[in-house]
Amino acid sequence: MTRAVAFVGLGAMGLAMAKGLVAKQFRVSGYDVRAEAIDALVTNGGHGARSANEAACGADTLVLMVVNADQAEEVLFAAGALEALAPKATVILMATCAPARVVDIATRVESTGRGFVDAPVSGGTVGAAGGTLTIMAAAPTPVFEAVRPVLAALGSNLFHLGERAGQGAAMKIVNQLLAGVHIAAAAEGLAMAERAGIDPARALEILSSGAAASWMLKNRGPRMVEDDGAVTSAVDIFVKDLGLVLDAGRAARMGLPLAAAAHQLFLAASGLGAGGKDDSQVIEAYRALSPRKS
Amino acid sequence: MTRAVAFVGLGAMGLAMAKGLVAKQFRVSGYDVRAEAIDALVTNGGHGARSANEAACGADTLVLMVVNADQAEEVLFAAGALEALAPKATVILMATCAPARVVDIATRVESTGRGFVDAPVSGGTVGAAGGTLTIMAAAPTPVFEAVRPVLAALGSNLFHLGERAGQGAAMKIVNQLLAGVHIAAAAEGLAMAERAGIDPARALEILSSGAAASWMLKNRGPRMVEDDGAVTSAVDIFVKDLGLVLDAGRAARMGLPLAAAAHQLFLAASGLGAGGKDDSQVIEAYRALSPRKS
Repeated sequence: MTRAVAFVGLGAMGLAMAKGLVAKQFRVSGYDVRAEAIDALVTNGGHGARSANEAACGADTLVLMVVNADQAEEVLFAAGALEALAPKATVILMATCAPARVVDIATRVESTGRGFVDAPVSGGTVGAAGGTLTIMAAAPTPVFEAVRPVLAALGSNLFHLGERAGQGAAMKIVNQLLAGVHIAAAAEGLAMAERAGIDPARALEILSSGAAASWMLKNRGPRMVEDDGAVTSAVDIFVKDLGLVLDAGRAARMGLPLAAAAHQLFLAASGLGAGGKDDSQVIEAYRALSPRKS
Repeated sequence: MTRAVAFVGLGAMGLAMAKGLVAKQFRVSGYDVRAEAIDALVTNGGHGARSANEAACGADTLVLMVVNADQAEEVLFAAGALEALAPKATVILMATCAPARVVDIATRVESTGRGFVDAPVSGGTVGAAGGTLTIMAAAPTPVFEAVRPVLAALGSNLFHLGERAGQGAAMKIVNQLLAGVHIAAAAEGLAMAERAGIDPARALEILSSGAAASWMLKNRGPRMVEDDGAVTSAVDIFVKDLGLVLDAGRAARMGLPLAAAAHQLFLAASGLGAGGKDDSQVIEAYRALSPRKS
């Protein structure tokens, strides 16, 4: 059973996940390009590494919670973390990536004799902090079973979708379609309530109580009604993720009208300067389109 | 406290609501244009009326759970149910209608000395059967308080939004924006999973467990994955309701790109012959756009 884990990518999600592993008695060696993220992990009992390679050195499990496939390739191949791992180590890629890129990374990892698990997650920082993430894993069964303790510690909704890398990524793409559309829909609805003169906090309470509810409405809605400045996941993450959704639709020759419309709103919000703000602030695009009458 | 209620409009929602009132010891006199709906109410202990006027005759509370404002006006004014009610009776309009139409109906009802409550609902047949509906009410406080026992019996999430008729209808319009977009988004996501070769039932389970979840995904998703032929609310109801959303947006000069895209999918499904099918069958529009490869 794996008890020592190298963890690269300590954003809001990654840090919460790494801290969760520490709390469950894993020895976590973490690295991120932002020194303050490493400090936060150390404060919580983790070990801070000075590079991805130092974190990976001799480890038999490497979790990658970086932003995208480019960063995963940079860490594994360019920086050399893959070769720094133990010879029979397993790489768990948990970032949201295009399925074709995941297949390519898996092939390169497996060519060195190491294992690869395609395991993107859903559930936000709430799920990351509580260990209740949904994990959409694909890997050969023995490889999956070898790292099951790590995955089970991170997510209470653990699914082994299949043996082939890319199947997890494909499922995550569908997940992000719904997640992104639901955030934009929450913004569209709350912006419409504002325009109709309904107190948006009251509207949010009502919408959350019935058939209009979504996980995203309940989670992001409060930050749309009253922007507290917190950033759990940025507008530009959904510019990227809905971009991956539309790329997948384009590859499959499949029209995805809602995802396409939602992507436009995230792009507009980013263009308005909100790219680094919390993704709830996609509502700024609606407010720009339809300013409240004073 | 009102214990006798006239109830007109016994569709899937209305029938479940009327049966719920009977179960809570209200004397319910019900009418619908479909005789079998009246029979179903009688089987459950309600009284069956041969016309809306007979149901309303001498009653001090009339619940209208008809399909739209046209039907409400037909029952109240053309057929004459309003004049059949007791002189100080209260009319509770629970159908989804354009706010301007509700204001007009309220004015005409109140001009006869009777009370009017604008009280649309959300929560589907599940909420109707369980008495857990969300009710978005607007009425002068004394009128609202007089019928509170009836409303509280129908919905555990009872909101008194304001004194003016139309405020409930405006809130319901926002609710339907989210509900309709969420149904179409569930169809878009599940259709994409099908195309990616993911077992749709597995996809639904995964999506429902994390940040992609919505009330509609959990409620309508199973019927998208395996159409059981049941109709709890039809595709054409969302053709109507998202039409009301877009009419309200047009009146307010507000662009609603997600609602507009979702409306197109419901229109397409209706055009494909699925107008009378369960609204989950909006997924037929996606399957027509992108047939599964055999």
